[in-house]
Amino acid sequence: MKAEVITIGDELLYGQIQDFNSSFISERLTAEGIEVVFKTSVGDDINRIAEAFNIARSRADVIITSGGLGPTSDDLTKKAVVKAFKRNLVFHQEILKQIEDSFHKRGSSMPKINQNQALIPQGAKALSNLWGVAPGIFLEDKETLFFAVPGVPVEMKWMVENEVLPVLRTKKFTGSMGPEHFILHRKLKTTGISESALYEKIEKLIDPTEEIKIAFLPGYLGVDIRLTLETGDRNQAQVKIDEFEQKTREILGIYIYGTDDQTLEGVIGKLLLERKKTIAVAESCTGGLIGARFTNISGSSRYFERGVVTYSNEAKTEFLNVPTEIIEKYGAVSEEVAILMAEGVRRLAKTDYGLSVTGIAGPTGGTPQKPVGLVFIGFAHENDSFAQKFLLGEDRKINRERATQAALNLVRLFLIKQVSE
Amino acid sequence: MKAEVITIGDELLYGQIQDFNSSFISERLTAEGIEVVFKTSVGDDINRIAEAFNIARSRADVIITSGGLGPTSDDLTKKAVVKAFKRNLVFHQEILKQIEDSFHKRGSSMPKINQNQALIPQGAKALSNLWGVAPGIFLEDKETLFFAVPGVPVEMKWMVENEVLPVLRTKKFTGSMGPEHFILHRKLKTTGISESALYEKIEKLIDPTEEIKIAFLPGYLGVDIRLTLETGDRNQAQVKIDEFEQKTREILGIYIYGTDDQTLEGVIGKLLLERKKTIAVAESCTGGLIGARFTNISGSSRYFERGVVTYSNEAKTEFLNVPTEIIEKYGAVSEEVAILMAEGVRRLAKTDYGLSVTGIAGPTGGTPQKPVGLVFIGFAHENDSFAQKFLLGEDRKINRERATQAALNLVRLFLIKQVSE
Repeated sequence: MKAEVITIGDELLYGQIQDFNSSFISERLTAEGIEVVFKTSVGDDINRIAEAFNIARSRADVIITSGGLGPTSDDLTKKAVVKAFKRNLVFHQEILKQIEDSFHKRGSSMPKINQNQALIPQGAKALSNLWGVAPGIFLEDKETLFFAVPGVPVEMKWMVENEVLPVLRTKKFTGSMGPEHFILHRKLKTTGISESALYEKIEKLIDPTEEIKIAFLPGYLGVDIRLTLETGDRNQAQVKIDEFEQKTREILGIYIYGTDDQTLEGVIGKLLLERKKTIAVAESCTGGLIGARFTNISGSSRYFERGVVTYSNEAKTEFLNVPTEIIEKYGAVSEEVAILMAEGVRRLAKTDYGLSVTGIAGPTGGTPQKPVGLVFIGFAHENDSFAQKFLLGEDRKINRERATQAALNLVRLFLIKQVSE
Repeated sequence: MKAEVITIGDELLYGQIQDFNSSFISERLTAEGIEVVFKTSVGDDINRIAEAFNIARSRADVIITSGGLGPTSDDLTKKAVVKAFKRNLVFHQEILKQIEDSFHKRGSSMPKINQNQALIPQGAKALSNLWGVAPGIFLEDKETLFFAVPGVPVEMKWMVENEVLPVLRTKKFTGSMGPEHFILHRKLKTTGISESALYEKIEKLIDPTEEIKIAFLPGYLGVDIRLTLETGDRNQAQVKIDEFEQKTREILGIYIYGTDDQTLEGVIGKLLLERKKTIAVAESCTGGLIGARFTNISGSSRYFERGVVTYSNEAKTEFLNVPTEIIEKYGAVSEEVAILMAEGVRRLAKTDYGLSVTGIAGPTGGTPQKPVGLVFIGFAHENDSFAQKFLLGEDRKINRERATQAALNLVRLFLIKQVSE
């Protein structure tokens, strides 16, 4: 079963908007064992959209398009379906009712323009949209399964998970489209180690004749190692990939913080809960990002007690009792201040742990002694406190995110007893 | 002059890697006035790559491909050129010399496998690669200008800027592909109003026969209105698009917070600096996101004094002096507590303004009276304080970001005197 993903919208071709939708859809299809063979982006032009649909029909069994389902005149997906599949649009009273209801639920009445969203191609089925108004479309045309979902990410994601994939799961086994075939992936997520260092450590595991393929996916918060296995037997593949993960973990140890959808903050949250420990955070250059990462996790109130963003020196002194003289002597960005901030927030919040960050995010504020990218991360616990120094890069946004990641990772390493001083 | 961008590599179809290369190339082409009509991603499969090249030849004057130029066996771009354009590969001694030199410069000798990078299609020109080894390719075939650049972003970017665009600039004016032609864009960024409501308000400005095209780009933090004008005269286009923006602003007024690359936090930062005002923030469900947005802006320390993430009720009481009885009587998520939090953080930080958020981000913690998505935003200033109630959705991540956006927007509206109670 081969698939093509088509994303629709001029903005995708101007390069101003990143096409995260097609990645999401591709990833979900791949996880289901459906091979994505092409991705196409096309602008808001009815002829070009119809052309893309026709080309896709000639080379894929499944077509998923995203975008162009809104009520306005630049939303052309349905008109292109009419053209490519030679179907008329049919008005559905029950769809109109659903659209009206979804406006009423929000306490407003349906604008007249949304009426046209109740039109769908003849023979097609409307797909429901939990997060928005525009229904999706599922059309089975000869050997082609065609789905149209909205371009708004939250609507698209829900519809793919809840309306598209369930249909494909049925079709895959009952349809006439070839034997079961899976591509199994596993991501081993690392942080705090470079791509080349990772490569050198696990080079001996990489055998091009092996069934399991290894790819390194570097990002600025860490490198993911992707294992890929194509197979016809899901259980056997699972065993093989588990074994390979085990071998990799034996070499990489603490560098791997999680797999697949696990997040660093999720892993830390679990560790804190298991150990019944609480934490509070004092941030300077990260401006709230560490608190935001901790509280990404539902239920984080059980271990994340509070955070302070002590952007000014006064705040560091008043909130955290960092003495003015220390700030004057060593500077706000220093090991000494990082330690006192961590101790201060721990005392203030009466938590088991205190975490702090102070640094120079840039682009301004650097000196030859203390360049942009210099960051100290402090950590205080019952018996001791310490700080680690990091030298990051020159980009403000990336420095802030990297400092956040490094701070979280330090907590993780402390919790698994891999760092103490 | 129409272009197609083709990115090559299995990883793009697994959805695990974001295709930033095609956005970069599209943006640079668009800025040169070259219309990108399609983007295609294809895996490491010689037949499919050749098919993508042939389809692109039939519908675009310029083709730019990225990826598949490395020395290993899964690098198939040149072989696909052989197939699609029916050209042989020719060995070039001087290219081999350059490749050897670039290894020597790094203090190593050339691995044998890199020899094949000195092969390029007959009649093609090699493009130099400042940051890597693989040369690019420029092939002029009948009416088609074909470029192949590497997939490594830093190599791709340099080669596009320094080798591809200069060729296109010459061709555009001397070639047979039409007169100088620009596409001018402007984005008007709105928040706090739905796509349909925006559409109804400015419907009368939308004239399909007009030169200026309007598109609505909805996201969950707001809707951008994109104006597009294709033209041969850049100055005249600027005037026209300015006029159109003016007409739109007359209707939409305060809903527009900025244009193009402006951010809501940047706009607020400018307003605070102009008025010499400072602000402090007390966050609950947003967990630090508001502080992080404020401090996105370099120089924000001049107006953002501090933030507190009072996740626990104790923190609300201790930091902000919100009386326990009030929390017990009205609940932590209430108008009363939001107001007291804003007043508390303003007093604590001795700033002109205090901003607060308290809400239920979900997925758990909701009740029939106080459902998931209920958020109160409080604001305190010299003379008064108030809170606004918002009913957001069911998704934790989106609720947190929406609450953050709503809080920032409330500050903006206060600063431009559009909200006071």
